[in-house]
Amino acid sequence: MLYSEMSKVQLEEEISALREEFENLKSMNLKLNMSRGIPSKDQLELSHPMLDILNSSSDFISADGADCRNYGGIDGIGEAKQLFADLFEVSTDEIIVGGNSSLSMMFDTITSAMAHGLLGSTPWARQNVKFLCPCPGYDRHFAITEYYGIEMIPVQMFDDGPDMDFIEKAVASDPLIKGIWCVPKYSNPTGVTYSDETVRRFAALRPAAEDFRIFWDNAYFVHHLFGDDRKLLNLLDECKKTGNTNMVYMYFSTSKITFAGAGLAGMASSVENVKAIKDRIRIQMVGPDKMNQLRHMRFIKDLDGLLAHMDKHAALMRPKFEAVEETLVSELSEAGFAKWTKPAGGYFVSLDVMDGCAKRVVKMCAEAGVVLTEAGATFPYHNDPNDRNIRIAPTSPGVEELKAAIHVLGVCAKLAAAEKLAGIQ
Amino acid sequence: MLYSEMSKVQLEEEISALREEFENLKSMNLKLNMSRGIPSKDQLELSHPMLDILNSSSDFISADGADCRNYGGIDGIGEAKQLFADLFEVSTDEIIVGGNSSLSMMFDTITSAMAHGLLGSTPWARQNVKFLCPCPGYDRHFAITEYYGIEMIPVQMFDDGPDMDFIEKAVASDPLIKGIWCVPKYSNPTGVTYSDETVRRFAALRPAAEDFRIFWDNAYFVHHLFGDDRKLLNLLDECKKTGNTNMVYMYFSTSKITFAGAGLAGMASSVENVKAIKDRIRIQMVGPDKMNQLRHMRFIKDLDGLLAHMDKHAALMRPKFEAVEETLVSELSEAGFAKWTKPAGGYFVSLDVMDGCAKRVVKMCAEAGVVLTEAGATFPYHNDPNDRNIRIAPTSPGVEELKAAIHVLGVCAKLAAAEKLAGIQ
Repeated sequence: MLYSEMSKVQLEEEISALREEFENLKSMNLKLNMSRGIPSKDQLELSHPMLDILNSSSDFISADGADCRNYGGIDGIGEAKQLFADLFEVSTDEIIVGGNSSLSMMFDTITSAMAHGLLGSTPWARQNVKFLCPCPGYDRHFAITEYYGIEMIPVQMFDDGPDMDFIEKAVASDPLIKGIWCVPKYSNPTGVTYSDETVRRFAALRPAAEDFRIFWDNAYFVHHLFGDDRKLLNLLDECKKTGNTNMVYMYFSTSKITFAGAGLAGMASSVENVKAIKDRIRIQMVGPDKMNQLRHMRFIKDLDGLLAHMDKHAALMRPKFEAVEETLVSELSEAGFAKWTKPAGGYFVSLDVMDGCAKRVVKMCAEAGVVLTEAGATFPYHNDPNDRNIRIAPTSPGVEELKAAIHVLGVCAKLAAAEKLAGIQ
Repeated sequence: MLYSEMSKVQLEEEISALREEFENLKSMNLKLNMSRGIPSKDQLELSHPMLDILNSSSDFISADGADCRNYGGIDGIGEAKQLFADLFEVSTDEIIVGGNSSLSMMFDTITSAMAHGLLGSTPWARQNVKFLCPCPGYDRHFAITEYYGIEMIPVQMFDDGPDMDFIEKAVASDPLIKGIWCVPKYSNPTGVTYSDETVRRFAALRPAAEDFRIFWDNAYFVHHLFGDDRKLLNLLDECKKTGNTNMVYMYFSTSKITFAGAGLAGMASSVENVKAIKDRIRIQMVGPDKMNQLRHMRFIKDLDGLLAHMDKHAALMRPKFEAVEETLVSELSEAGFAKWTKPAGGYFVSLDVMDGCAKRVVKMCAEAGVVLTEAGATFPYHNDPNDRNIRIAPTSPGVEELKAAIHVLGVCAKLAAAEKLAGIQ
């Protein structure tokens, strides 16, 4: 029965039953964690053969002739640049392959914009700079802009991407809006893939700021779950058509493909942007870890190899997302107050519980031994204005654990909602 | 015969003979490179067994229980922190082990000081900040401060470290002097190890700027050549005694121990500084590459293992430094105008040719197929005021190549000097 249609007595009965169940769950001393989007042990094992590829009898020469054991080269070995170029459908002079973290490539680019400006523009540190933040979104993006005191403006997410009407008007009218955070495919946490129309509208933006940039974090570019990979239009291509060639930085990493935190990160942008970033990297370091690049490339080989490897990940992750969906349906469909995403890829399910209940639900889950991402984390300043969004990260636990955890989540979400309706909380 | 005592006729004869020899050398089409301090292939092979240590049947759990294949941890795995703590003789909470580049740890710390300030001080970007630069010094240090527009003040180097009288007065009187670059052991390029007295005077500095910092780049901490390792006093310890606990950042990397550009980098500083840097790293990335840390630690094991490994490097490098010394003596002793260092460790020999000749010598060497570090590179703004210092990097070529290259260098140095004395150039 829909909670919204329950009488006071029915609600009280429901609350009483849920409280009993909640106390039972607490007494089970569960210890389950769905807080971060991390690969499972099974997924990590898919890349174990990579560890046998470079050994003491290997040759260590990259496709472009570099000895990967020694200094030299700042933008990645030839074969790694080629893979990223094939992936992003750009040329290798639009690519930088870096270290183990695409997040740090974003951080460093924003840092550079703060301290130096971009392509000769005024350093952002000298202005009261703002960023657009489609949300719910990725908490670590928002942490970077918050760290630099950049004002974050929330933008609503729809099923085909963020609110483009709002974005078009905002960037056209305010020269202090310098950037926007996007996870355009299998978005974190909503799973949304931006439509072609959305991508074209991004490319056609007419920002008041000449140094406005789209941070296009393609973290889940090839991370489909059900084989029906959703094609994302190439933003850099579209930007070339509209004359906004320098407006976009696109990022990718293999952290959720090989080893998390020990993979390859890279970016694609215009030749002019790439040159400016290489000029900075040349000062910052002697170069990236070419041994890890070589190890990866001899394992992955090429884009086909990468995609075949992703099918193996999908096979391991699919049952987990199915378990989440089934359990959410059985726990929450009937009560009617919650809605959640059914993603075709990525690492998350985004659950909206009853307005004003997310913080309480996360707290109750923790009391019952289920750790979720902090409520509000998916919004700028950790502020979910409706206090309703919860990010579920189902990849790390096993299927049975996951069912148990989602059951706890369901009970807590229902108890919080019923108590809210009954005016108890 | 000393060039300074030659008659005009003698000089002309010398020049004529040297010119003939120079033309001969050019016709040999040599291709030798002594420009960068990079390990030789023999040295790199010392670490090949490390590549067999992590394989598909390894366990991947660090001493402190982290699965190194997955996310988590921002300051290094337990055993790596312990190695760096033993090396720096500090506690593990004064250590951060990062990625593959100590240079980027320095760059990031200065970037953070520019954008945020240090421990609550005013961001350097809002002031006309200055750095002290003992020189000849490390070109990549100077490149960082130049990149940020930080005014670089040259400081003379003596045999026991930089000119401390100058440094004491400068930092005490000018609150805009915010830092100093030091390579305190087997210094780049002079090979000098700072004396205990010098280290104690550093610790006892009374800077006008509360956010003055010593960037103590211990790149050659364990890189002795002749077994008689020169002990360097522990600056952090000394700073604790003088109440300057937060005044120093100390850096180290294994780039010249395992694989260049694919090693481990780390730093030591006060608990308070380390905490502030970890707060930044937490925003910048998910964490360092723990797989490479684990691979290194299972190979190196501990400080004794590290030191034993360095003895193998020394055995390979020693004959090269001896060849440089012998060839420089036979080429240049008699002429009397040049002086050079005879380092006990590190990667360089520092040669002073006749004043006003370094640029010309480097250019002539290049014409004869011998690539040297650009003249002036070891000084701020690439400006050697006496135009006399040349950095020789003898580690990469073989002994015979090296003798040939130093012979070319000797001929060019003599020709430039003789022509200078004769008033021809």
